[in-house]
Amino acid sequence: MLRVAVYGASGYTGLELLKLLARHPHAQVTAVTTRQEDTPTLEQVHPQLTGLFDLWLEQLTADEVAQRADVAFTCLPHAASAEVVKELVDRGLRVIDLSADYRLTDRAIYEHWYGVTHPDPERLTTTPYGLPELFREEIRGAKLVANPGCYPTAAILGLAPLLRAGLIETSGIVIDAKSGVSGAGRNPKQHLHFPECNENLSPYGVGTHRHMPEIDQVLSRVAGGRSGAVEVVFTPHLVPMDRGEMCTSYALPAADVTTESLNAALHAAYDNEPFISVVQTPPGTKDVAHSNRCHVYTRLVRGRVIVVSVIDNLIKGASGAAIQNFNLMHGLDETIALR
Amino acid sequence: MLRVAVYGASGYTGLELLKLLARHPHAQVTAVTTRQEDTPTLEQVHPQLTGLFDLWLEQLTADEVAQRADVAFTCLPHAASAEVVKELVDRGLRVIDLSADYRLTDRAIYEHWYGVTHPDPERLTTTPYGLPELFREEIRGAKLVANPGCYPTAAILGLAPLLRAGLIETSGIVIDAKSGVSGAGRNPKQHLHFPECNENLSPYGVGTHRHMPEIDQVLSRVAGGRSGAVEVVFTPHLVPMDRGEMCTSYALPAADVTTESLNAALHAAYDNEPFISVVQTPPGTKDVAHSNRCHVYTRLVRGRVIVVSVIDNLIKGASGAAIQNFNLMHGLDETIALR
Amino acid sequence: MLRVAVYGASGYTGLELLKLLARHPHAQVTAVTTRQEDTPTLEQVHPQLTGLFDLWLEQLTADEVAQRADVAFTCLPHAASAEVVKELVDRGLRVIDLSADYRLTDRAIYEHWYGVTHPDPERLTTTPYGLPELFREEIRGAKLVANPGCYPTAAILGLAPLLRAGLIETSGIVIDAKSGVSGAGRNPKQHLHFPECNENLSPYGVGTHRHMPEIDQVLSRVAGGRSGAVEVVFTPHLVPMDRGEMCTSYALPAADVTTESLNAALHAAYDNEPFISVVQTPPGTKDVAHSNRCHVYTRLVRGRVIVVSVIDNLIKGASGAAIQNFNLMHGLDETIALR
Amino acid sequence: MLRVAVYGASGYTGLELLKLLARHPHAQVTAVTTRQEDTPTLEQVHPQLTGLFDLWLEQLTADEVAQRADVAFTCLPHAASAEVVKELVDRGLRVIDLSADYRLTDRAIYEHWYGVTHPDPERLTTTPYGLPELFREEIRGAKLVANPGCYPTAAILGLAPLLRAGLIETSGIVIDAKSGVSGAGRNPKQHLHFPECNENLSPYGVGTHRHMPEIDQVLSRVAGGRSGAVEVVFTPHLVPMDRGEMCTSYALPAADVTTESLNAALHAAYDNEPFISVVQTPPGTKDVAHSNRCHVYTRLVRGRVIVVSVIDNLIKGASGAAIQNFNLMHGLDETIALR
Repeated sequence: MLRVAVYGASGYTGLELLKLLARHPHAQVTAVTTRQEDTPTLEQVHPQLTGLFDLWLEQLTADEVAQRADVAFTCLPHAASAEVVKELVDRGLRVIDLSADYRLTDRAIYEHWYGVTHPDPERLTTTPYGLPELFREEIRGAKLVANPGCYPTAAILGLAPLLRAGLIETSGIVIDAKSGVSGAGRNPKQHLHFPECNENLSPYGVGTHRHMPEIDQVLSRVAGGRSGAVEVVFTPHLVPMDRGEMCTSYALPAADVTTESLNAALHAAYDNEPFISVVQTPPGTKDVAHSNRCHVYTRLVRGRVIVVSVIDNLIKGASGAAIQNFNLMHGLDETIALR
Repeated sequence: MLRVAVYGASGYTGLELLKLLARHPHAQVTAVTTRQEDTPTLEQVHPQLTGLFDLWLEQLTADEVAQRADVAFTCLPHAASAEVVKELVDRGLRVIDLSADYRLTDRAIYEHWYGVTHPDPERLTTTPYGLPELFREEIRGAKLVANPGCYPTAAILGLAPLLRAGLIETSGIVIDAKSGVSGAGRNPKQHLHFPECNENLSPYGVGTHRHMPEIDQVLSRVAGGRSGAVEVVFTPHLVPMDRGEMCTSYALPAADVTTESLNAALHAAYDNEPFISVVQTPPGTKDVAHSNRCHVYTRLVRGRVIVVSVIDNLIKGASGAAIQNFNLMHGLDETIALR
Repeated sequence: MLRVAVYGASGYTGLELLKLLARHPHAQVTAVTTRQEDTPTLEQVHPQLTGLFDLWLEQLTADEVAQRADVAFTCLPHAASAEVVKELVDRGLRVIDLSADYRLTDRAIYEHWYGVTHPDPERLTTTPYGLPELFREEIRGAKLVANPGCYPTAAILGLAPLLRAGLIETSGIVIDAKSGVSGAGRNPKQHLHFPECNENLSPYGVGTHRHMPEIDQVLSRVAGGRSGAVEVVFTPHLVPMDRGEMCTSYALPAADVTTESLNAALHAAYDNEPFISVVQTPPGTKDVAHSNRCHVYTRLVRGRVIVVSVIDNLIKGASGAAIQNFNLMHGLDETIALR
Repeated sequence: MLRVAVYGASGYTGLELLKLLARHPHAQVTAVTTRQEDTPTLEQVHPQLTGLFDLWLEQLTADEVAQRADVAFTCLPHAASAEVVKELVDRGLRVIDLSADYRLTDRAIYEHWYGVTHPDPERLTTTPYGLPELFREEIRGAKLVANPGCYPTAAILGLAPLLRAGLIETSGIVIDAKSGVSGAGRNPKQHLHFPECNENLSPYGVGTHRHMPEIDQVLSRVAGGRSGAVEVVFTPHLVPMDRGEMCTSYALPAADVTTESLNAALHAAYDNEPFISVVQTPPGTKDVAHSNRCHVYTRLVRGRVIVVSVIDNLIKGASGAAIQNFNLMHGLDETIALR
């Protein structure tokens, strides 16, 4: 039985992570932390967890956590997360970091987009990017894994096999992305107030969203090119629903590409994957809601490749992927607690 | 043309009020106030008002407002509202107060339920309660009108004709109320955060909601009895929708009451009312959304009288009623700007 | 490993049942039936089940099912269900019936409310009502169990302990019920069309809902009285959300009842129950969404007992309860696949 | 006073049209038709119209309508609409056709995309396309106007000024479109059943939507080129909300284009338009809900022009535009009943 600590357990990724951990036969949650001053029970913070845990949210030092846990999930804001991660890794814990801190391998890019000095830059180039469908072998047995962003997960799972197979051009990729509101976190804000975003659809972060360089980096690597080989145009939209995320991606085809060859490339990449399906009807986000699955669909329309990929932003886009990485890091069956 | 000031224009009742005023042929909005420090344009605060007004939100003294306006709508928190209202009335403006400050005629009850000293207690007993269907003659020509609460509007419109006709008992009334989220105001709060209240239904203020004594007072008066003749059990619920409010009320019938006699009493009360309809299929809140209407339905079931009444909480439950009162106060056709 | 057949697998209760069965270590789904003519795969009918089963919906005779399965869940319309159930029970299968056919013990009441002749009246008086919190011992080892209705589950779990303890009167009980739209089934209908019921709240079946006699029967039995000892006034409402169900119940207290004694009775009944919690803040339906839990809350307000109970209508109100009964019938740990 | 008939009044565009007509000082609705056999009152079909009209839905011949009305709005399915329109125009009525029948000027393209023989092909080339912001002079005084599709309205209003100013290339335009569910009409269908599309986001009609050739035609004309000069890639998505429509369009910039020059072109086109605003924060659909407005936003991001345009699909995308055309056809102030 692996003893598990969850940092930042009061948010939505923390909640989903704890639900999955409650089902995990090899994990026992022994510590849940908060940065707030009081120490509520988990049930008070998350009524949905009633009856599952007998735990309090606590403020704990790294030493205290190291005594109680073998592995930690960090659901903290960027920079704050790396501060904690380095202390935990130094003490021998395995860590799955759900923040953005270890996703970008280039410190300058990180510091440009996040506007802070990285607290632990040495580990940037050695930490695997936790997308098992692309980097499974790097993740297996790793001490620290950078759990991917939600939008990058959906976008990359849709585009990577086509880029790798040379079926689409590296330039000119447009990703029109849509997400349910839980992706924006649990802190109340004016534009996330129910009567503001209910019955509303709005784009945000046009040209400025931090997931853009993350997508660039991974797709550039997949394309086999230099850093910056791929520069996507990425436009996220807020959709009035709790959860679910979709990327509708548009790319220029290489010569002689057909809808059939596009589908063949996706099938070749995913037919042995436990959580990815290539579908022939346009997928809805609800098809994968509350699951660790991703459904991918592609068509060639008027000389343009369209790829639609859907995930649950809190599961495959965050906490489910974290459990999948946890399983791989510990040599367990990758699908435990995720079916 | 009446010059109109709107206090507290940045909330949802302010927004709806301004939409209605934009259509009003005898009203011109000349001032909109805010208690915040900056002075945004109305369009910045309410994109939905784009193109309708050329106004800035301002911090204005009562003297400044008195120079610009003949009449004021006050959409301010309780106590803060009465502070402003008394200054405006003293300067000769007509005022429709959308706060709770002048609804309760008994100062002690007000101060008990609202926990503050009333800033203008002298006017409590002389200010008409702005429900035209019950108190039209008092409102006509009044200088100051207390605009009713949203729940009381729905509850009273459903029950008053039956109480007045002696068809239901004054004791044992239960009001199970449900409201869309806009009724909770525009300030972001944890429980009003989209992913918290979307796909959720929850009761609140069980036995403690401030609209309870307001309903008691008006129904007691309608019942012809002493203060306290009616004491309702009132349970509000938050429903995952923008707007709309329903009261499902349960009462004990007097002897020999039938579904037919219940309907007859409602028809007698409302057939000449421009905004109230007695309906024979259970009404939905959407039937009256974005309108100043109230639909009322009644049945006798297993020896209990059931009354269902629906309104749009922001229109008939707030800003539409305020315009109706404005029309009556100025001797205008009651329905102007409300069809 | 128990071989399981699911009848009527194309609806929402079928979907949720199959999701739970996919996680059940002692169940293997071997047949899923439909009354339609084609034989789609489960994934075509329920994209959410992608990757979990390798099954087709089929039209099967009772003999064919008896060869493939040891136990069956029937998610069929009333009367159609009993036709199948009797054939299966006669062939030795254990059956959990999710229709209303075996819930009412009085054939005349069944035939009055459902307007059909009962196809299998002999078993009405011997089939346990599958609410483990009240009738666990009858369910344990049973061959056939009548899975309760969703509203009765929520209503009874809230009221039964108070009735049994003599804290509330048997007469005068009002149940104001609210349900998400999945409770109305998967067949498209005008009033369930998205733009009709979104942003809408409406009562339905006022005084005529078929769950009313079911609640009467169980509460009368609990109250220890004759049949008909309890006759509730029951008003359901349709709420614009997928799932979740709430009963806000109002009852007259016996002498000397307090909020404390009400809570004490609930705690005495439920503190050892794996799926029921007595809570001290008004519960929201989302607290128990996607779980087999029920949260119950009570207060005495102005001389009236208020009880609020919430469940997920598809889980504790249907498929989760069915799994709980399945576990009990087979001597398994009651909570398997339900945490 | 113009006497008005509304064909196909039982759907959502009929409903919104009637709400607007109820406010129109120069229009009196004298006939509302249905193709169904019974003759319900308008209130029965649309409870939201309670108190506004004293009309029954009827089956009427063209002669009967011609006796009662001067002008007709046709909200009928394609082909069925042209059958009626030609009869009405032949009898001297002015007609605003809300179907797709007179939008495409090329009969072959119409018959290819709609799969029917056009019942009235002669009028195809002479009927103005009812988008006043582009074709106001053609509409003014016209006998018959083709009211635009909802998606084309949003897409064209966003892109046309940039194409006309030569700021974007005619090739390579991608339109990622999103619509609320009312755009799919009022007939219940499986995928529009509340629990199917609530909490769901899904693309549909990928590469096959009939609004694609309509957008091509108008943008090609605007671009000054031959028919087929513009061929857009158009992907619509269904969003879980009642109303609201957004086009997020992507185009290749001409040389030396900047965010400033893009905005300047939009301002030049729209600063005198009563219903169009160029905005500097990404617009939400709720900003224009229940209004005849369109908000347009543009940015140059990584060498790609992004244009976001939002409308209310039932108002500016259908019934509001129809009233705007009605006003223009009759020489009235274009904004009557639309503020």
